[in-house]
Amino acid sequence: MEPIILIHGGAGDIPQNRVKGKLDGVKVAVIAGHKILAQGGSALDAVEAAVLSMEDDENFNAGYGSVLNLRGEVAMEASIMRGEDLNAGAVTLVKDFPHPISIAYKVLTDSPHSFIGGEGAKLFALDKGFTTVPPESLISENAKNALEEFLQHGELGRTEIGMKNEGGVGTVGAVAIDKYGHIAVATSTGGMSGKAVGRIGDTPLIGSGTYADDNIGGVSTTGHGESILKYCLAHSIIKLMENGTDANTATKEAVTGMTNRLKNTAGAITLSKNGDVGIYFSSKRMSWAYIKSNKIFYGIEHNQILEDEYRPS
Amino acid sequence: MEPIILIHGGAGDIPQNRVKGKLDGVKVAVIAGHKILAQGGSALDAVEAAVLSMEDDENFNAGYGSVLNLRGEVAMEASIMRGEDLNAGAVTLVKDFPHPISIAYKVLTDSPHSFIGGEGAKLFALDKGFTTVPPESLISENAKNALEEFLQHGELGRTEIGMKNEGGVGTVGAVAIDKYGHIAVATSTGGMSGKAVGRIGDTPLIGSGTYADDNIGGVSTTGHGESILKYCLAHSIIKLMENGTDANTATKEAVTGMTNRLKNTAGAITLSKNGDVGIYFSSKRMSWAYIKSNKIFYGIEHNQILEDEYRPS
Repeated sequence: MEPIILIHGGAGDIPQNRVKGKLDGVKVAVIAGHKILAQGGSALDAVEAAVLSMEDDENFNAGYGSVLNLRGEVAMEASIMRGEDLNAGAVTLVKDFPHPISIAYKVLTDSPHSFIGGEGAKLFALDKGFTTVPPESLISENAKNALEEFLQHGELGRTEIGMKNEGGVGTVGAVAIDKYGHIAVATSTGGMSGKAVGRIGDTPLIGSGTYADDNIGGVSTTGHGESILKYCLAHSIIKLMENGTDANTATKEAVTGMTNRLKNTAGAITLSKNGDVGIYFSSKRMSWAYIKSNKIFYGIEHNQILEDEYRPS
Repeated sequence: MEPIILIHGGAGDIPQNRVKGKLDGVKVAVIAGHKILAQGGSALDAVEAAVLSMEDDENFNAGYGSVLNLRGEVAMEASIMRGEDLNAGAVTLVKDFPHPISIAYKVLTDSPHSFIGGEGAKLFALDKGFTTVPPESLISENAKNALEEFLQHGELGRTEIGMKNEGGVGTVGAVAIDKYGHIAVATSTGGMSGKAVGRIGDTPLIGSGTYADDNIGGVSTTGHGESILKYCLAHSIIKLMENGTDANTATKEAVTGMTNRLKNTAGAITLSKNGDVGIYFSSKRMSWAYIKSNKIFYGIEHNQILEDEYRPS
């Protein structure tokens, strides 16, 4: 089948001055993922590549540019899932590696476990040959400003609101289906500005931040983490599709259901096993992009679908 | 409505010499929970009380008696959820508190977050007035023997198998509905013998180990953690019930579905919002008990329902 990759760069009340950086960033990232699919690579490698690209880009709240906890530290988390056998890898409370998604991928392939946190994640990563970086090298000016603003007049869980001229950073995620029909999903985040030490959000939780099942589809979510994990947002979308709802309707229904029940916003991107696309967000904005039929489709506003020609080189 | 409490003491290949301790333990624990319901207390307080009782009982793999990681340490996790508003609290990588479930409960009531791990969970607990105990005071002889046996010829993820004369310890959980029709669920565990440092299992993950929704019902799960979290077992049961399947059928279908897909065993206990009971396990044994209509029902073998008279004092 035709391979497809669909990504997001985070849902939230993204300020206008952050829109361009995010749109540029999701286009770069979706191309990085699609190149792998176009060369016959796996959905897993494609979603990792797209997320890596956004982890390196300070326009996004993942890897470099992650927001800071109350102690001024980066504490990142990520998950990745393979739809063929439901195998999964996730890490949390990662402080000194630039690419949490690659450690999560290694958990999927090389660990008897699915989820490793804190000191254990570091020990696992070192054992698998990953190299630490100084934690402060992951801190961007934007992230410092976001914590400052949070400490002055912040509201927890609205990290991505980006008061004034800052913020607007967002969790990142990717869903892909490769030419063999295999689905994979990856999600990575720095969490929320001003979070407590040790706070774990929805991103590394299979069923909340990430879900992939070759028999149904794949979902990556973003938004208010505590609400997403209480609602099991990714799995809720999967279950609607399992019962016959199409990808777009399922995504909209579950995101809306969560926002109605829990009074916080979120967004999600979804691919069905047939390659149908679902994109919905109840927040003000969510950057997203996908490549299908030699076109890049992308957007960040409600009811906005921009489109560029794209020929894989 | 008539309050009900249903609990489990863990699924696994429990050896015969551990059967009596577990049956005695679940009867004590279910009474501890039911007393609160009978006095008009909340489902949340009832499930906490039942789980506390099992955390103190070395027959179970939670609190005192938790199994040990590869470094010979206890690292516990727990979650609790309120069906009225989907509010949840969870902790992981807790090393020196005797009652992880009470810290999880405090996360539910007092934190803007839902899930806190490691050092952060300790800081939160100390801030809320919990007192540490020496980590080694939580280690039982059985847990030490289980790690020894695992290191000699263990198979990860089969903790509860209890090779030879040991093991048979199990995750604990409770589901209750109070006289107001509110549902709560609590689950607590020491994880699996010989787990890696930092390993996080299904127990603290909302949707995997625990789920409660007043509009549908409540579920607590036990068994092979990595499989339960990949399958989102608790949420899968909830979604079957939401679509009209009764509690017992939903529990059996989802546990069987997980075991067929992922080739590992699990068990779950379920209450519907109407107070219907679901109990199923694909493992050799799972201890369980519930109190309804002045009787304690309990069992540990397949197709076994024992029954004692019970009058709340």
